[in-house]
Amino acid sequence: MALIVQKYGGTSVGSPDRIKNVARRVASHTAQGHQVVVVVSAMSGETNRLIDLAHQIQPKPDVREMDVLISTGEQVTIGLLAMALKEQGVQAKSYTGAQVKILTDSSHTKARIVSIDEQNILSDLENDNVVVVAGFQGVDAKGNFTTLGRGGSDTTGVAIAAALGADECQIYTDVDGVYTTDPRLVPEARRLKTITFEEMLEMSSMGSKVLQLRAVEFAGKYKVKLRVLSSFEEGGEGTLITVEDNDKMEQAIISGIAFNRDEAKITVVGVPDKPGIAYQILGPVSEANVDVDIIIQNVGTDGTTDFSFTVHRNEFNKAMEVLKNTVQPHVGARDVVGDNKAAKVSVVGVGMRSHVGIASKMFRTLAEEGINIQMISTSEIKISVIIDEKYLELAVRVLHKAFDLDQEEA
Amino acid sequence: MALIVQKYGGTSVGSPDRIKNVARRVASHTAQGHQVVVVVSAMSGETNRLIDLAHQIQPKPDVREMDVLISTGEQVTIGLLAMALKEQGVQAKSYTGAQVKILTDSSHTKARIVSIDEQNILSDLENDNVVVVAGFQGVDAKGNFTTLGRGGSDTTGVAIAAALGADECQIYTDVDGVYTTDPRLVPEARRLKTITFEEMLEMSSMGSKVLQLRAVEFAGKYKVKLRVLSSFEEGGEGTLITVEDNDKMEQAIISGIAFNRDEAKITVVGVPDKPGIAYQILGPVSEANVDVDIIIQNVGTDGTTDFSFTVHRNEFNKAMEVLKNTVQPHVGARDVVGDNKAAKVSVVGVGMRSHVGIASKMFRTLAEEGINIQMISTSEIKISVIIDEKYLELAVRVLHKAFDLDQEEA
Repeated sequence: MALIVQKYGGTSVGSPDRIKNVARRVASHTAQGHQVVVVVSAMSGETNRLIDLAHQIQPKPDVREMDVLISTGEQVTIGLLAMALKEQGVQAKSYTGAQVKILTDSSHTKARIVSIDEQNILSDLENDNVVVVAGFQGVDAKGNFTTLGRGGSDTTGVAIAAALGADECQIYTDVDGVYTTDPRLVPEARRLKTITFEEMLEMSSMGSKVLQLRAVEFAGKYKVKLRVLSSFEEGGEGTLITVEDNDKMEQAIISGIAFNRDEAKITVVGVPDKPGIAYQILGPVSEANVDVDIIIQNVGTDGTTDFSFTVHRNEFNKAMEVLKNTVQPHVGARDVVGDNKAAKVSVVGVGMRSHVGIASKMFRTLAEEGINIQMISTSEIKISVIIDEKYLELAVRVLHKAFDLDQEEA
Repeated sequence: MALIVQKYGGTSVGSPDRIKNVARRVASHTAQGHQVVVVVSAMSGETNRLIDLAHQIQPKPDVREMDVLISTGEQVTIGLLAMALKEQGVQAKSYTGAQVKILTDSSHTKARIVSIDEQNILSDLENDNVVVVAGFQGVDAKGNFTTLGRGGSDTTGVAIAAALGADECQIYTDVDGVYTTDPRLVPEARRLKTITFEEMLEMSSMGSKVLQLRAVEFAGKYKVKLRVLSSFEEGGEGTLITVEDNDKMEQAIISGIAFNRDEAKITVVGVPDKPGIAYQILGPVSEANVDVDIIIQNVGTDGTTDFSFTVHRNEFNKAMEVLKNTVQPHVGARDVVGDNKAAKVSVVGVGMRSHVGIASKMFRTLAEEGINIQMISTSEIKISVIIDEKYLELAVRVLHKAFDLDQEEA
């Protein structure tokens, strides 16, 4: 008998029939003798409907009241799912975030979980109830409703699993696991049986479609066994996200090829090579609410240096404007050049730490296809390159093959 | 400066634009220096939408989870109304029933209010906030959500007014007050400036369209000044519902003519005139979930008596079946006869206590029009007659005139 926390997203509970399916899935676990806590999101479309109502009233809605409003979405789902479980003869009891209670800070619409009172849940589980908890929401110390921000239901699931010391936290989504790369691009892409938390974080461009990174960080921190599964296919084992130490010996060198299509790169050319220059360049960019991804500054040669970074393509024009109008005159740069047709490809794997030659294999593979590398950035378990967007698919395919990712795991 | 509790129903908050109108109305009161607590229902249609979802999941929905589900309806409204107030520059803060908190018993879907914690509301009012409270809902001692049943938002409004010692509880509806009778039937019908709680209760057939009787009882018990107003017309003074002692001297003899179209009358003929017979007849009827209205049993003459009562027309067939199949053989009645084309007309007024001749005036007026009276039932402040349905409109019109209800109040 295990204690399992299962999280179902908005699509999985998007209609009465789908809610009934979730209830059947849960019932099959209790029938095996497991204790189950279910965390659910709002029915798909519901949160957007509520946000739209708010905008009809207030162009910039008050955040406290926004949380009052949108936290009704999950409350609807928990009521309906508890009914569906009872209709199947399974004892069930629902809780909102405030009822649990999931205590958060007071940062409305993007609150952080402070603590979880697990007493009610544990006592209901003892009495053979399935406990259904509203994801995404909590309550602050003064009793105000809060929400956790985008993908917050994943975080609720992991946090409850951590608080209960659950054996596993299962995240049901519309994919059946984490793949070596996007199967739409590389048909040979393979579902990974396991991946480490760190790799999941580095695979963000792929991973974020599967699972909120914040939840992954949380799971890593509290050593929660996290599994990604399909909510539409029965019987799959999904991908287990583990702490690194497990099976380190058998860990594949490379776990996957991540990529991001919508990049833009910008270089500030001929910047005086002196302390504080990075802040003088990126400060105004960040103030303009432009998120920066890769940042590269090479050693200067003639007392000046070139400072490069990438931004999301949608924010390219805004960033260029700030740089040309504000930064360039201020820091005395020679020029600002950019290209909004870039893409990022990364090889990710904890195994590369102990293996030399991954980088050179990656660069050689790309060179053999005539793909020019424009920027390089590395972390301990990831090597990313910026290339011309038009080579993206080719690069992903050849790297996937070069690192034998289409072969079955040992 | 007064402390006012205002309650707005589902139609009054049925769209973002209507919510903005309510906010303007509230703002006009705060601009006059009043402290305002607003109690709101779910947006019209929302509760039915949620109930429909529940029925798609569970034909007979679990009541605990039903309350979890439907209490989201008012929560949406309080968030939106608080936003609308802020958009108009009025400080506002919303509370669900659980947040207030409105403590109820655990009778899900028809809970009764036990107590209200007024501390948060009072302190917010002190800080110049309009406090927006979700009607219809509360929380039991264990923290489970409860709802108060049909029209519960009126009760929430009155209960909060009582707890706060508010100067007035204003119920905004789609009519502009309580009338001497239905203006659709009698164009001369007049809005009453005041009516007593007791009269409101006796006028149930008209009053229930305006205001939940339970809220009226509650207001009477706690001496809350209750006023019914139109939420669509500005500036009206509506109808004030008062405790009887106010202005007793100037009280009109008759306040109004109430009526009910959909009656059916049933007579159990030739019943042995002995103790326990009423229970033996009505017990099985009540077990069949048929509500009985007027009950009449006359003195027996030949050792038997006739026992008559009225039921709603929709339940006539069910009642007749129970009576013929079960009751008649059991009590040894001679026959069971019925008529489902009956109607009830009542004259209501606290003034009739101290005035003789009201009944005879009523009966004479009807007789002059050739309207046969089939049953008569009286209380201290009401005289009801059952007549043939086809004479209903005529009866109401002539009684309205006979008692001078079309004349302006002194």
